[in-house]
Order: sequence, then structure tokens, then C-alpha cells
Amino acid sequence: MITGGTIDKEYDPLTGELTFSKSHLINMLNQVRCKVRVVLEEVMLKDSLQMMDEDREEILNKCIQCQENRIIVTHGTDTVVETAQFLGHHVKNKTVVLVGAMIPYTFGASDALFNLGCAFSAVQVVHPGVYITMNGKIFHWDNVRKNKESGEFEERQQEGATSRDRK
Amino acid sequence: MITGGTIDKEYDPLTGELTFSKSHLINMLNQVRCKVRVVLEEVMLKDSLQMMDEDREEILNKCIQCQENRIIVTHGTDTVVETAQFLGHHVKNKTVVLVGAMIPYTFGASDALFNLGCAFSAVQVVHPGVYITMNGKIFHWDNVRKNKESGEFEERQQEGATSRDRK
Amino acid sequence: MITGGTIDKEYDPLTGELTFSKSHLINMLNQVRCKVRVVLEEVMLKDSLQMMDEDREEILNKCIQCQENRIIVTHGTDTVVETAQFLGHHVKNKTVVLVGAMIPYTFGASDALFNLGCAFSAVQVVHPGVYITMNGKIFHWDNVRKNKESGEFEERQQEGATSRDRK
Amino acid sequence: MITGGTIDKEYDPLTGELTFSKSHLINMLNQVRCKVRVVLEEVMLKDSLQMMDEDREEILNKCIQCQENRIIVTHGTDTVVETAQFLGHHVKNKTVVLVGAMIPYTFGASDALFNLGCAFSAVQVVHPGVYITMNGKIFHWDNVRKNKESGEFEERQQEGATSRDRK
Repeated sequence: MITGGTIDKEYDPLTGELTFSKSHLINMLNQVRCKVRVVLEEVMLKDSLQMMDEDREEILNKCIQCQENRIIVTHGTDTVVETAQFLGHHVKNKTVVLVGAMIPYTFGASDALFNLGCAFSAVQVVHPGVYITMNGKIFHWDNVRKNKESGEFEERQQEGATSRDRK
Repeated sequence: MITGGTIDKEYDPLTGELTFSKSHLINMLNQVRCKVRVVLEEVMLKDSLQMMDEDREEILNKCIQCQENRIIVTHGTDTVVETAQFLGHHVKNKTVVLVGAMIPYTFGASDALFNLGCAFSAVQVVHPGVYITMNGKIFHWDNVRKNKESGEFEERQQEGATSRDRK
Repeated sequence: MITGGTIDKEYDPLTGELTFSKSHLINMLNQVRCKVRVVLEEVMLKDSLQMMDEDREEILNKCIQCQENRIIVTHGTDTVVETAQFLGHHVKNKTVVLVGAMIPYTFGASDALFNLGCAFSAVQVVHPGVYITMNGKIFHWDNVRKNKESGEFEERQQEGATSRDRK
Repeated sequence: MITGGTIDKEYDPLTGELTFSKSHLINMLNQVRCKVRVVLEEVMLKDSLQMMDEDREEILNKCIQCQENRIIVTHGTDTVVETAQFLGHHVKNKTVVLVGAMIPYTFGASDALFNLGCAFSAVQVVHPGVYITMNGKIFHWDNVRKNKESGEFEERQQEGATSRDRK
């Protein structure tokens, strides 16, 4: 499920800005010779700083209603934790892994493909639940935050946080 | 653990051949902003078609003797199944994931980083055992073959093959 | 002579902005195996929209005072025409070619290296004067403009414009 | 005029060899936003070590018969000097620039685009004749050799060699 984020952005040389024109997920999966059966659905192409409640509601509905039990959601890293928390409270009996990138896939020296690979393995083996894969790690939805200074994801300091559901 | 393979090859413009000069794993991990604690050890840089029994013995010994319980082995795809089978018979109580690439990391449009991401997630969550991650899938060592015509990895047709140890 | 511009910009994943950290010209020349004797001087690293009169004065002084008679100036494309005009009125008996890029060299699918190649040939063969090379063309300083809508460089509609000095 | 060479080669992951499938010149020209009016003709896609007399005859005939007076020929670097010499003896009143690359365009960190840019400028400004552009330099057909050890192009030690026609 494609929702946007830096992973899918492009550079517009006329404005000097990063924009969306189309998702590159299909190119990414072809480039890496992925042979897992994948259904790609582009729900939106948004910078996650622009996501509103109704966007998260739409992502949730798609997760619940789709036939698949294992879902990867590409998402902007700025508010992926909020979306993960929202899904975590409402999605049952499915495995959802949210993933993004700090550098757009189109920029060459990107983390996009590595992160996507992490998501692909995780979604096939973790117990049902909602997760984020970034920086080579798998985080449970209720134990993750984005460190805005470093741009890295880490476990939250959370009373009662456990590493359940990671095996 | 680095053993070579196409994933780490470079193009030599003077000969027109693919060769090894040094491993690129450290660059790869920096590029993708991997924050998992990793110990990199370059054991050899070989095309896996040139691997001999003593090479596989060396890989096995390193796996058994090293302090780590979760090991990723970068390896050429041509004989990674043989190495996985050898390790599978002898490695106990550790998780080993072998991974390679069909296109060198240095070539740009490569599957290397995606495959490495798959390996990183897998090695953190699967049950102890020996595995191969290629084409977005996680294979148990005793149920995998490389399809030489397509260049893809798939499950072997094996009597009694199960999907044990994959969750 | 390096003055900045998109050609030398990088993407900062923490801010989502394009910034300067260091020039990449030395990497570019090594990548393309350039064997022309080159003296690289980084005068500034500025977006050309931020260039002031004193910056252009500095560029002019460097052009006049340096030992070399053939000079390539990397420059932002937004105001390279202004700089070319300023140099054109004041530089005598030297060949100066200004060049930039619409896509940063660091972004992979860039026009940077092609444009630099155009500049390298031009500076070796054109008559002394001041020129801009962009979009595969060589423009004389007094007959060029940047079309802001298309991002392309073209000849200005100019009374008395000739193609002198281009052979 | 496209004749092949490393510039247009691709990596075949199934064989580990470099091969031709189609020319990438159109992609290259689009990537660099070239606005020079170009007619692309793919005459052959050969490794220049496989070129025979009849191939060079075909290239010569195309050069003579085509409407254009300024021609860039993409060519393998191994025997581009031989082809340049053959054309040099027979092509009159046209400007022909032969160019290749040491690293395929498809490999990312290539010299292809820089070399092509050199050729584009050169073909527009040099006097009629036959030339090679490599390593940032413009060589006259009767004063160039490929140094096989270094992979670089340089002037030949030739009695009576002059730098005529280069301005």
C-alpha cells in the first residue's frame, strides 16, 4: 500500500523542490527481482506532514478491508509513528509493516531499497501486529519514535514496553 | 561475514571483467543508515564458483567460533545453496542468513541493498537455523535451489519439505 | 573555478533541503578519467540567486589574476547569464566558459557530467571570450538567456546578435 | 551514429557478461536535457574488437551519404583509432567526432555522459575533419592512440605531428 513519503519523491529541477509525480514501487520491485506475490495499491502520494485524520482513516479502512493479511505500507517518515499507533489500536489479525526512507529512491544513494527489503522479510515472519522497519530494525508500533535530530528511529522510553511480538 | 560474490564485485574497465578489490559492505551500511550493531568481518572475496571445501570449512568455523548468535553471510549466488546446506548440517543454536545479489552494488541499479535489508530483518526474527534470503523471500537451507535459467531462487521439490522454522 | 550552483548541491535528509557541504568537482573529474591538466579552485559555494555584486567582482578578479588562460566556472544556472555578462564586459584575452546543471551531480540521473564535458571541449577550442555551455550548446555571453519556464538556455532575441567567436 | 562499444553495453546477470540489448543514447540525451537537434541512427551494436573492414566501410558510407555535416559516432574504445584513421583518409568537408566510454552508461559511475558532452561541443566548433574525444581532450585522427595499459587516450609520437585543426 503506497501512501507517499520521501521514498517516492522526485526532484523538480524547475522549482528546486521535491515533489510527487508517480510511485516508483513497481520499478523498485522489478529492479530487485522481487518474486513475492505483491498487490500494489496507490492510496495517496502525500508528504506525511500533510496527512490528516481522514487520510489515516482511509489507510486503516484499506488495511481492514483488503483480502491480504500481510501488508506493507510505504509512508513518510515524519509521522509514520502516528499512523502506526493509529493502526496498532485498530487492526487485528493482520501483519502490517510501515516503511519509508530518508533519501528518495530516485536520488541514487538511497536507503529506500534496503528499508523495503527489511519490510519484506519482516512482514513474512513476524506475528500479526503493526510494525515499523527503519534503520535495519523492526519496531513494534507502541515502542518507537523518530529522533528528529538524528533522523533515526529508536525505541521509546515507555513504561511497560516489551519486545513482544518481535519473534 | 563477507565472503565475496557478485554483490561485492566491481567492473575493471581495463580488462572488461568483474573483479574484487575491496568489500563495499561498510559503504552499504552507511548509505542505508543502518543502526543495528554490526561486526563486519571479511573472510574472503571469492566468486562462489571458485569456492572449495576448505573455504566452506573456514566459513563454518567462523560461524561457530564467533561471539555472535546472529550472522549474515554475503556470498556469491552460484553456490550459496551448497554453502547453506553445509552450514545447515553443522551449525547449531545460531541464526545464519546467507545473502547475495545478481547485480553488483557498484553498478547502481542493483538488488544488493534490498537483499541485504531482507537479510537484516530475517536474521533478527527467525528461529535459529540457516537460511537464504533472495528475491524477497526467506528460504530454509534444506528447501532452496537456484534456478539457473531464470537466476531466481525457489523452493526445491523435496519430499517432506515443510515450512518449519520460518515463523 | 567553483562557485556553487545546483551542480554541486546535496540533499539533506534531516531538513529535506538542498545544501552545500563540499564541492564534488574532484570526484567528477576522477570518475570521468579526465586527463586534461586542471587546477581546481573553490571560490565559493553559493546558490546563484544569492550572489551579490561583490561575489561577481571576486569571480572577475580571479579570472583576471590567475595564470590560466582557459577557465571553466561552475555556477548556478539561475543567474549565470548575469555573471557571464559581467565577465564578458571585463575579461580580455582569456577563454572563460561558465557551466552548471539542472540536477545535482549527487542525484545520479544528472546533466552535470555532460554539461561539464561540453565545457571542457569548448574551453579548449573556442576563440578567447566568455561563454556558457548548457543543453549541449555553446552560447556567447551576449546572446543567451535562461528560459525560466522550460529551464533551458537559448539565444536571446537581440538586435545585432551574431554567431561570432563560436568557431 | 551509434556503432556500439562499452558506452552502450549492459550487464547480464544470468551470464555475468557485458552485452548489448539496445542503445541508450536516447535516454542519455533526455537525461542531460540536450536541446541540440539530433538525428540518431543505430548502425550496429558491436564491441569494436569484433569490427571488420565491412563495418568500417558501412560507417564511412553513412558518414558520406547522410545529410548532416556534423556527425558524432559512438564507438568502442579498443579500435576507435583504427576507425578514425579510416574515416580521416576518406571523409571530406564534414566534421566527424568519434567517442566512447571506459565504463558503460548503465553502470552509474560512468565517463559516458562527460565524453558525450565533450563530443557535442567539439563537433560544433572544430574545423571539418575527423576527431576523437576521450579523457576530456580532442584528438585529431592522425595523432591519437589508446594506451592499453592505462586505458587512456594520448597523442601519438608522430613525425610532423601538429595541433592543426584544433582551434
